[in-house]
Amino acid sequence: MTFIDKLRNRWHAANSLLCVGLDPDPAKFPDRFVDDEDALFAFCRDIADATAEYACAFKPQIAYFAAHNHGEAALQRLIAHINGAHPEVPVILDAKRGDIGSTAEQYAAEAFERFGADAVTLNPYMGRDSAAPFLQYNDHGCVFLCHTSNPGARDFQELPVPDGSGGSEPLYQRIARTIADDWNGDGNCALVVGATFPEELKVIRDIIGDMPLLIPGVGAQGGDVEAVVRNGRTADGTGLMINSSRGILYASRGEGYAEAAADAARELRDAINRHR
Amino acid sequence: MTFIDKLRNRWHAANSLLCVGLDPDPAKFPDRFVDDEDALFAFCRDIADATAEYACAFKPQIAYFAAHNHGEAALQRLIAHINGAHPEVPVILDAKRGDIGSTAEQYAAEAFERFGADAVTLNPYMGRDSAAPFLQYNDHGCVFLCHTSNPGARDFQELPVPDGSGGSEPLYQRIARTIADDWNGDGNCALVVGATFPEELKVIRDIIGDMPLLIPGVGAQGGDVEAVVRNGRTADGTGLMINSSRGILYASRGEGYAEAAADAARELRDAINRHR
Repeated sequence: MTFIDKLRNRWHAANSLLCVGLDPDPAKFPDRFVDDEDALFAFCRDIADATAEYACAFKPQIAYFAAHNHGEAALQRLIAHINGAHPEVPVILDAKRGDIGSTAEQYAAEAFERFGADAVTLNPYMGRDSAAPFLQYNDHGCVFLCHTSNPGARDFQELPVPDGSGGSEPLYQRIARTIADDWNGDGNCALVVGATFPEELKVIRDIIGDMPLLIPGVGAQGGDVEAVVRNGRTADGTGLMINSSRGILYASRGEGYAEAAADAARELRDAINRHR
Repeated sequence: MTFIDKLRNRWHAANSLLCVGLDPDPAKFPDRFVDDEDALFAFCRDIADATAEYACAFKPQIAYFAAHNHGEAALQRLIAHINGAHPEVPVILDAKRGDIGSTAEQYAAEAFERFGADAVTLNPYMGRDSAAPFLQYNDHGCVFLCHTSNPGARDFQELPVPDGSGGSEPLYQRIARTIADDWNGDGNCALVVGATFPEELKVIRDIIGDMPLLIPGVGAQGGDVEAVVRNGRTADGTGLMINSSRGILYASRGEGYAEAAADAARELRDAINRHR
C-alpha cells in the first residue's frame, strides 16, 4: 500500500488528524529512564504503543537520535516496532534532507530502505533534480518544506517572487505551486506548513487541492487548532497531519507517563475533531 | 583554533585551495575492498592519508555513510583519524541540515560533538533562528547553501526577489547578503556556490568580501577551474575550497588506488594554482 493510501485509510479508521511527533530528549525523560542505556528506544516505544490508537501518523525526528552514539540503531528498532505492532499507522521520518541527485539517492536509501519509513520530510531549496531520487520511490511519501512554523520562516520563505502571470506571490506559495503542478505526478507529495501561520494555510490549500499537509507548531509553538483545521482541511474534513511532539511526549515525568501521553493525544485528537 | 583560522593557515601552508570530498560508494571501490566489512572507513582513510598533503580541507558527505547500517561509526572513526593524523586539515561535514531551533541544537551536537567536525554545511531556507544553534559554536564553521551546482539550482535559487533598494536580485544573492551582513557576526560563516555557475561567483564575491566559498561541481559536474579561480578568489589568491570527490576517490580501482588519488589531487591542486 502506498503512503498516501495508508494515510487516507488511517484518517478514517482512527477518526484522527493527529500526528504524534517522536523527538526524544533524554533531559526531559520520565525518572524511570535515568541511567537506562536503551532509553531512546524504550521511551519512544512506550509512547508509540500508548498513543497509536489516536494517531494518523508517527513522526520520529532523526536529529534527536543522531545527536547520540548508536542513536540510529534505536531509531531503526523504533520504526521496526511501529511497523510490526501498528502497521496501519504510517511513519514519516522527519529529516529535511536535500542534496544533489547522486547524494539524494543515498539519503533516499537511508530513509526508505535502512530505516523503513513510509515518508520523509525534504527541503526543496535545491530544486527538482534534488527531489527526483525520493519521488521515484512512488509508493513512499515526500513531504516538502513550504512555510515552516518558526520565526525565521519570514526571512526567505515570504519574499515576493514572480507568480508567472505578471504579479507576485511569496516564495513558499511558488514552491507549493511547483510541487503541486510538476513534482506530484505520482501523487506522493505532501507539504509542511506551520500552524503558526493559519491564514496562509487557506491560500496553500487552494493552490494544492487535496494534497496532504503536515502541520507542526500546535502546542509548544503556539498554533491555534481551530484556525488550522478550518483553514487547512479538505472538503471531506481530512487532508491534515497536525503534529504534536512535546505536549504528548512529556505530559508527565512520573510512572504514569504513558497514560498521560495517551490522554494528551486523545484530548488533542478530540479538540481537532471538534472543528472538522 | 577556529575553523576559519585553521582553513586560512592551511591555504598557505599547503599552498592549496583543494577540498577533497569523501563520498564513499561501495559500488565504485577498488577491488581489494570487495567483502571488506570495514571498507567505508578503510577506503576513506587510505584516500585521506594519500591526499592530505594536497588538501586545504576534507569534506565527508554524511549521506554516503547514513545509507548503511553502522555507517555513522565509520564516519566517526574517519573524522577521528583525520583529526589525529592530519590535525592541520579542517573537516567539513557535508550534511545540509536545517530545522527549527530545538532540533537544530540536536543537529549541531551531531556534527560538532558526536562527529567532531570543524564545520558543517547547512540549508538556509528556514531562516535565522534555524541557523543560530550552529552559529553559536563560534569556533566552528557554518557553510550555507547559496547557489548550488545542480540543474535544479535554477528552480528557486534564481527567482528574483526585492534587493532592498527598489530593484531585484536572485534569491541566492539575497541569501548571500543576509548571511554576510547579519548571520556572520562571529566571522564563522562560509557559502556553497557551484562551479557550474562561474559568472555568478564574481557577483557573490563582491557581496561577501573575504568570506570563504566552498565550490562543488568541478570535474564530474563540469565546472571550469580557471573561471572558478578567476571569479571566486579573494585579493590574496585564497578564499576558496574547490571540492573534488569522484575524480580523486575513484581515480583507479587497482592496487594503486591511493597513489592514483594522490596524483589526481596533486594535479587538480596544481591546475587550480596555475590560475591564482
